[in-house]
Amino acid sequence: MHVVTTTVVACCQLTPVFGDLAGNRERTARAITDAADAGASVVVLPELVSSGYVFESREEARACAEPADGETVTGWAGLAARHQAVIVGGFAESAGGELFNSAALVDPGGPRAVYRKAHLWDRERFWFTPGSDAPPVVATPFGRISVMICYDLEFPEWVRLPALDGAQLLCAPVNWPEYGYPRPAGERAAEVTRVQANAGVNRMFVAACDRDGTERGVDWVAGSVIADPDGYPLAGPAQPTGSSTIISAACELDDALNKKVSPLNDMHADRRPELYGRVAH
Amino acid sequence: MHVVTTTVVACCQLTPVFGDLAGNRERTARAITDAADAGASVVVLPELVSSGYVFESREEARACAEPADGETVTGWAGLAARHQAVIVGGFAESAGGELFNSAALVDPGGPRAVYRKAHLWDRERFWFTPGSDAPPVVATPFGRISVMICYDLEFPEWVRLPALDGAQLLCAPVNWPEYGYPRPAGERAAEVTRVQANAGVNRMFVAACDRDGTERGVDWVAGSVIADPDGYPLAGPAQPTGSSTIISAACELDDALNKKVSPLNDMHADRRPELYGRVAH
Repeated sequence: MHVVTTTVVACCQLTPVFGDLAGNRERTARAITDAADAGASVVVLPELVSSGYVFESREEARACAEPADGETVTGWAGLAARHQAVIVGGFAESAGGELFNSAALVDPGGPRAVYRKAHLWDRERFWFTPGSDAPPVVATPFGRISVMICYDLEFPEWVRLPALDGAQLLCAPVNWPEYGYPRPAGERAAEVTRVQANAGVNRMFVAACDRDGTERGVDWVAGSVIADPDGYPLAGPAQPTGSSTIISAACELDDALNKKVSPLNDMHADRRPELYGRVAH
Repeated sequence: MHVVTTTVVACCQLTPVFGDLAGNRERTARAITDAADAGASVVVLPELVSSGYVFESREEARACAEPADGETVTGWAGLAARHQAVIVGGFAESAGGELFNSAALVDPGGPRAVYRKAHLWDRERFWFTPGSDAPPVVATPFGRISVMICYDLEFPEWVRLPALDGAQLLCAPVNWPEYGYPRPAGERAAEVTRVQANAGVNRMFVAACDRDGTERGVDWVAGSVIADPDGYPLAGPAQPTGSSTIISAACELDDALNKKVSPLNDMHADRRPELYGRVAH
C-alpha cells in the first residue's frame, strides 16, 4: 500500500528590524507559531532574519552574530519541538573569531545542521567568511531536506549537489535585493524563475523565503515561492507589501523521489557526468 | 570608443512535414529568407527541421538522415552566404553507419560546426547515437555562438560548458512535445523558464527555436523564446498557432561578455569549481 503523505511547507516572509535581535526573535517566533497553527510542518525563514542584512562594517555584523548554539537557534529548536516541525532560518553566525552568513535546520529532535553560505553577495565578503561545505541533506521526520542561501541558488552546480544526495525539499532563506536587474513589466523576478528551474531540472521541491520591509534604503523583491518538481509555483511568488506575509503549500514530498520525466527518461540518470569535467575544475 | 553592435536574432518556429525532406528544405529556405529580409543576422531553426521528429523505427530515421555535407546543410550554407547570416538548424545526421540528432552551425564562410545531441529524449535512443562532444563555440562575424539541442538544456552543467568558453549566444533547436508535464493555467511552460534561468545564471543570450504543427498525434509547446543575459525574454515565448511563426529580437551580444551582477560580483568568477567535484563524476 502506498501511503501519500502531504507535508505543508510555509515561508514566513518577515520584516526583520536591523540590529534588533530580541525583537526579531519575537517576530520570528510569532510567525513560526502562526504557520504551525495553520498546519505547516516545515517553516522556512529569511536569510539573516535574526539580525537584518544591510551591515556597514564588520563590527556591526559581529555585534549581531551569535554562535550556532546561541539564543536564536536554541529558540527555533524549542519551537520545532513544541510544534513538531522543521524550521530553517538564516542567522549571522560567529565561530572561532570568524563570521558566517549561516542557516540552521532544526527539527523536533533539536538542531540538525548549520549551513554556511558559500557564494557571497556583494559586500558580504567584507564581514562574512564563505562556507566551503556542501549543503547538508538531513533526514527529517518529513523527508530529506536541504538548505542553501540566496546567491547560492544562482549556481546550478551547487543546487545539483543536495539533489544528487536525495534531497526532496531544498529550503532557501534569501534576501533578494530589489536594486539588482531592472525587471520588464509583467515579468516574474529572475530570481523566481531560477528557483523554478532549479526545482524542475532536479525534480525537487524548492522553498525560497524572501524578506520584506525597507532596510537602510534597500527594498526587496519579496518574492517568496514554493516550487514543485515540475518547476511550477505551488505558492507564491509573493509580492512586496511592506509587512509580513506567510505563503504555504501542501507538498507530496515523495514526488521528489521519482526523477522520471518520460517512459525512458530520468533526469538524474540521464546526466552524463563524465562529460561535465570542466564544470568542476 | 565603444561601438555598440546590435545583432538581430530570429527563431523560425516552423511546421516541418514528416519525411518530406525536399519540402522541408523549401519551407526552411523561405523562412530563412523572410527572417533575413526582415533584418536577422542569426537565424535559428527547430530540431530535426529537415525531417520531422516522430520516428517509429530506425529505418524511418535512416531514410530521413543525411551526412553533414548533404543537401540540407549545404543549402543552409548557401543561404548563409547569400544573406551574410549565421544559421543554426537541426537535422538527422548519418555518419559511419550511425545516426545522430544533430544541429549545424553555418555562417557566411560555410559550415562551421556540427553538434550531436548528447542527452537523448525518450525513444530517440532507439535510432540515434548520443553525441559525446561538448557544444562547440564558434567565432562568427557576429560574436561567439554555441549550439545544443532540446533536452540538453535541462542539464545546467551542459549549458555551463559553452558559457565558460565565452559563448555570447546559445542557439538551441528544440522540439518541445506538449505531452510532457501538465501545465497550471497561466504558467509559462517549464521549458521556457529553464531557458530564462540558463541565460540568467550565465549572463548569456539564449535563443530556443521550437516547432509547431501536430505530427503523428504529437502537439508541441511551440514556445520559442529569446532570453537576454538578465534572464528575461526579449522575444516570445511564442504560442502555438498550427502554422509557422517567426520571432526576433535585437541583441547587444557584447552584453554577454560582462558577467558582473553587482559592484563586487561576477557570475562566472564567483563560481567555486573546487567544491563542485561530485557534479562531474
